[in-house]
Amino acid sequence: MQKIVPVIMSGGAGSRLWPLSRQANPKQLLPLVTHQTMVQETAERFTGERFTDPVFICNALHVDAIAAQMAEIGREVDAFIVEPVGRNTAPCAVVAAVHAAQKEGALVMLVPADHHVKKPRDFRDAIERAIPTANDGYLVTFGITPDGPETGYGYIAQGSGLDVGVFKVDAFREKPDFDTAKSYLASGNYAWNAGIFLFSPETFLAEAETHASDIARESRKAYDKADSAGNVIHLNKDVFAGCPSESIDYAIMEHTTKAAVVPCDIGWNDIGSFTSLQAARAEIESDDNGNALKGAIMAEGSDGCLVSTDSLPVSIVGLSNIGVIVHEGEVLVVNLDESQSVKKIVTQLKDSEQKDRL
Amino acid sequence: MQKIVPVIMSGGAGSRLWPLSRQANPKQLLPLVTHQTMVQETAERFTGERFTDPVFICNALHVDAIAAQMAEIGREVDAFIVEPVGRNTAPCAVVAAVHAAQKEGALVMLVPADHHVKKPRDFRDAIERAIPTANDGYLVTFGITPDGPETGYGYIAQGSGLDVGVFKVDAFREKPDFDTAKSYLASGNYAWNAGIFLFSPETFLAEAETHASDIARESRKAYDKADSAGNVIHLNKDVFAGCPSESIDYAIMEHTTKAAVVPCDIGWNDIGSFTSLQAARAEIESDDNGNALKGAIMAEGSDGCLVSTDSLPVSIVGLSNIGVIVHEGEVLVVNLDESQSVKKIVTQLKDSEQKDRL
Repeated sequence: MQKIVPVIMSGGAGSRLWPLSRQANPKQLLPLVTHQTMVQETAERFTGERFTDPVFICNALHVDAIAAQMAEIGREVDAFIVEPVGRNTAPCAVVAAVHAAQKEGALVMLVPADHHVKKPRDFRDAIERAIPTANDGYLVTFGITPDGPETGYGYIAQGSGLDVGVFKVDAFREKPDFDTAKSYLASGNYAWNAGIFLFSPETFLAEAETHASDIARESRKAYDKADSAGNVIHLNKDVFAGCPSESIDYAIMEHTTKAAVVPCDIGWNDIGSFTSLQAARAEIESDDNGNALKGAIMAEGSDGCLVSTDSLPVSIVGLSNIGVIVHEGEVLVVNLDESQSVKKIVTQLKDSEQKDRL
Repeated sequence: MQKIVPVIMSGGAGSRLWPLSRQANPKQLLPLVTHQTMVQETAERFTGERFTDPVFICNALHVDAIAAQMAEIGREVDAFIVEPVGRNTAPCAVVAAVHAAQKEGALVMLVPADHHVKKPRDFRDAIERAIPTANDGYLVTFGITPDGPETGYGYIAQGSGLDVGVFKVDAFREKPDFDTAKSYLASGNYAWNAGIFLFSPETFLAEAETHASDIARESRKAYDKADSAGNVIHLNKDVFAGCPSESIDYAIMEHTTKAAVVPCDIGWNDIGSFTSLQAARAEIESDDNGNALKGAIMAEGSDGCLVSTDSLPVSIVGLSNIGVIVHEGEVLVVNLDESQSVKKIVTQLKDSEQKDRL
């Protein structure tokens, strides 16, 4: 059976989920939605004969924690590829391809470490559906069938069919305004761009060399000059630091003629804010009023709230649609309609030299 | 100069301000509004030649704390009258009168320990205005001039004039519905019943004997049979426990023909809920958006909030009219439009045998 190498991008900081997500213990290392951490959830999506052991691309600070979390669920790790500095997803993808190219005939499944997928079986079906197209020389993205006029995501416009349930990408669209999002939804021809990819290393590297030759060259060099110890590969710092920082979409996907999309409905949630965390948790377990509660909590006359505490007991009275997070010495109370503004608190902390609280 | 004995009723639990107010450390012992505790604020209202040292009627648990707080502001205490059980305000008033009757010619100023008065000088003027009427054999209450159609207080209807700014009480009215409160406000003839009284001990005891003879008899007996040590007077438990538990209004004021009212505008706030605490604090100090903040707090896009922390730093994002209280190991988040419902949390704690959290 042809193998797929799951490459799990675990470099993010998740500052929109502060104070749950912290620099030392970011989003992907936390059991945010289920009892498993996000990297555990993600690794568990890729099991069985089809997949090799996972590869993690991450910060040096998080190698030990990820290793421990994989041991906890009995998973071996193919490699930790350590980014000495963050350089966005395009260099990640090149490094992933270079690494996977050593495994003959394998495809690369490139995924963020911090997304929740409620229907992993449907996701597996979508992957199987995508394999022939990836083998035909396409860079396949998995587009999420929208369930509302979301303005927080980029969209992918489907073009002509390539295979059953697989389409050429007509265009990538920036985050739309509300009216545009409604028209996308109505057309049925658009999917959310979730940043999940399947490709053959050879195809990807060829496209990267064509459309982003600097990134392709420098990323490969950082990998070739890496310091390795066991399964930990430290990308060469001097080289990688000189690599342009660009997203895979911006550097490659928006330019290649080889982009394909597999629209799928897999219960995807990027847990990109407390609003989406509330939704994901409430789907799994909520009280009679749709409150998602975790920890010692009493709720009175409240609905649609997210409350999470690792220490002090929390009581809520008369609240609608409010998030209350007590985590590692911080208390955050946020209107879930304004949860994007949490990053302003993070900015205040950075600016006020209270970086130890991040 | 005729003396007034300030008798400060400090027996309450203030459960509507949980978790700020706790059984061991209730509302009146806390610096809720200013840097002074409520009993300190209250004692400081009654200084100078006109007043004797204050008398406190309180629970045995709180004697030491009140003594320490009085020492802190350099105040002597005339007596601590210790209630072995709570029996509402009518027995308090009898005991206060019995105690003060020993100070020849003195009047009794009976006040709750847990109210904020923003304009103490105006309150002092009102007291001076009331003295002749109290000496004429009236039980004088201080009625607060309403500044809105409040439905949370009882009202006092003014009758005919007795002196400049002093009126007979026409009637005591229960907490009204909103429309009635609006009509009271429009008439200009009604004042809030704040539970503040000035009377001569002899008049009060005579009226108590007429209208509530059981309470008058048993309260006096509990005082006469008290155990005293220094200035601490422990009311006789067996006797006091047998005394009916009634409010001074219900037992006496609503029946006597000797009730008078001095309407006054003294910036009164009973700090009866987090809503009124927010208002009182915001008047003294608030940020540009009317948030009353105490402790390590960051606010982003929020207005009209009350945030108070004794420990963990608190961040708020996008909130309107929300209270966040972090106090002695508890976190409460409450919609300030629903702050009366905090008592439901207190009830839940009582019912669930978590009395140590009260």
